[in-house]
Amino acid sequence: MTDPAAVSARPRVAVRTQGPVRVVGAGLLGASIGHALRALGVEVILDDTSRAQLQLAVDYGAGRSATADDRPSLVVVAVPPDVTADVIERELVAHPQAVVTDVASVKLEPLVELRRRGVDLARYIGSHPLAGRERGGAIAARADIFIGRPWVVCRDAETSAADLAVVEGLALDLGATPVEMGPEEHDRSVALVSHVPQLVASLLAARFTDASAASLSLAGQGVRDTTRIAASAPELWVQILGANAAPVVEVLDALAADLADVAEALRAPEAPGARREVAETIRRGNEGVERLPGKHGQNRRFESFVVMVDDTPGQLGRLFGELGELGVNVEDLRLEHSPGAQFGLAEISVVPGAVHPAVDGLEARGWKIASLPS
Amino acid sequence: MTDPAAVSARPRVAVRTQGPVRVVGAGLLGASIGHALRALGVEVILDDTSRAQLQLAVDYGAGRSATADDRPSLVVVAVPPDVTADVIERELVAHPQAVVTDVASVKLEPLVELRRRGVDLARYIGSHPLAGRERGGAIAARADIFIGRPWVVCRDAETSAADLAVVEGLALDLGATPVEMGPEEHDRSVALVSHVPQLVASLLAARFTDASAASLSLAGQGVRDTTRIAASAPELWVQILGANAAPVVEVLDALAADLADVAEALRAPEAPGARREVAETIRRGNEGVERLPGKHGQNRRFESFVVMVDDTPGQLGRLFGELGELGVNVEDLRLEHSPGAQFGLAEISVVPGAVHPAVDGLEARGWKIASLPS
Repeated sequence: MTDPAAVSARPRVAVRTQGPVRVVGAGLLGASIGHALRALGVEVILDDTSRAQLQLAVDYGAGRSATADDRPSLVVVAVPPDVTADVIERELVAHPQAVVTDVASVKLEPLVELRRRGVDLARYIGSHPLAGRERGGAIAARADIFIGRPWVVCRDAETSAADLAVVEGLALDLGATPVEMGPEEHDRSVALVSHVPQLVASLLAARFTDASAASLSLAGQGVRDTTRIAASAPELWVQILGANAAPVVEVLDALAADLADVAEALRAPEAPGARREVAETIRRGNEGVERLPGKHGQNRRFESFVVMVDDTPGQLGRLFGELGELGVNVEDLRLEHSPGAQFGLAEISVVPGAVHPAVDGLEARGWKIASLPS
Repeated sequence: MTDPAAVSARPRVAVRTQGPVRVVGAGLLGASIGHALRALGVEVILDDTSRAQLQLAVDYGAGRSATADDRPSLVVVAVPPDVTADVIERELVAHPQAVVTDVASVKLEPLVELRRRGVDLARYIGSHPLAGRERGGAIAARADIFIGRPWVVCRDAETSAADLAVVEGLALDLGATPVEMGPEEHDRSVALVSHVPQLVASLLAARFTDASAASLSLAGQGVRDTTRIAASAPELWVQILGANAAPVVEVLDALAADLADVAEALRAPEAPGARREVAETIRRGNEGVERLPGKHGQNRRFESFVVMVDDTPGQLGRLFGELGELGVNVEDLRLEHSPGAQFGLAEISVVPGAVHPAVDGLEARGWKIASLPS
């Protein structure tokens, strides 16, 4: 029923990746890479220590099973962090003609381990697509998860231009944007924008375990957003955090110091600068969040307005049908209901120039606009 | 163009609130209460120390300006926390026939201050609607922001049943759910589910102020959600945090201790129990986030599936039109585009029994389903 390779429908310029590509590890990332490459007509060979996972990925169309005679031109190692170095070493030996990359979310630790073992790394280039889904495994795999996402490529002095082009070509073929970065900078960056946010969300949500149901009943959208990623699976995160401990601890320590300062300011509000400390915390938060790239990239902004929609089948169809008649392309939308309400609120994002034609056109057709862009 | 009182369109059983209601403070909450009451036909009298804010709220239809002869039966104090006690005292004196409530987000501090001054509080009942918007002020006011939200009502031994019914009636008339709670429990609860999450989001986002643009370019949806509320206005939050300092500090201290434990475990991974400490942090986060009431209330769950939609006007109209034909009511939805992609992904939530009819019907009509409920 599901068609994970459905992305093939869209037009492509030219495929850079030369097959066959061997993908080791048929979980979410490995199988998604398989689907995306197959949709481009590239031969994909899958391998996995779990026969069940492998068979599932093959059945879903992510590639064919490995054989002893395979001669891949590119090997993609997509296994958990704790076995990444082992598998990279083995693949470099087994496929002396191939460029080998991995997609693990930590880049320094496997590299240090491989160097310690004296492995010749001339054909190895570490990489990391910043892509994923809340669900894992071959069944959750989808060809489109890399589109528009950064794909970090860690070249070094040993890396040949030709090999670099192979890994960056893979990223580009899958719709991602290659970002060249050293392994230390990569690990510090993901500690800051991914690993520490995960821990902070988990630590905050963990405070709710012994709270009363009455207290939690007061929770709103803010805390739900702040703790959403606390629903992530422990197994993978223990590995990721363990493999990137030093950069994570550095950010945690800085955060703990800031937290202690603001707690002290709240404890002694009459102390000089206490009120200012609290205000500065919120203000610096404003500044920091403003620096994050938006969902649609840093330079493109949409404006949104809110339309009231009766809570009956067909009303959204009428709304979007009429927006289509008005020639308005909906860039993003969120629908919210409240229990007991007879209507929902549809927040519709469009390019700035489309707000007034859309709103005027909808009002002329009898829709109630609940709010306009601020 | 905007019609903040548009909620009047939905059918009402009976209006409990007897006017006239005097609302002091014509900002977001005060003006929203005004709009909602007027939509029910209740007379609303507005007052504000800012003539400009008052005039704006009156112009937008939230009520009429106060006069010296007003004899309100209910006074709602909707002013910033630092002047809440002063205004409550003044209103109790000025309107000896009225029940007086306030909607400040901290409940103990104003009460302690009023008691310290020896004010007769027999006619005062503190309350707090858990409602708001990212934007403030009379222009952002909207009649529907209270619908389905909890509205804490702090009765005490002095409170008469008749006066309690007035404040709870106001909450019910505005579509909120009254929740009786003592001021201490209220303040501890909002510290946990609102004030500390705000500070944590701000502290985390503040770490991005001196990060490189390259590091931040790796940010994804997870960290964006975790830090979304860091965009909140400093002025109001300095007051709220200052007025609720003790409960906030208590949660912050517990959080700091947990954070120190996990940092220590990451620093010394070979120490006994270190790996388990990290795993337990993530696991307790899973458990805590699961306890938060969902967008649709704790006991009602929806299932979602993802449909691929061409990125052209009218396609969403066709999709929702056909869902309407299939008799499927869309409970929630999110649309996502990626830059460069020729299609978007519409994540559609429906009641569990509707998943298969919806998916089968859409597939029969040629839609590509990108994923099914996990």
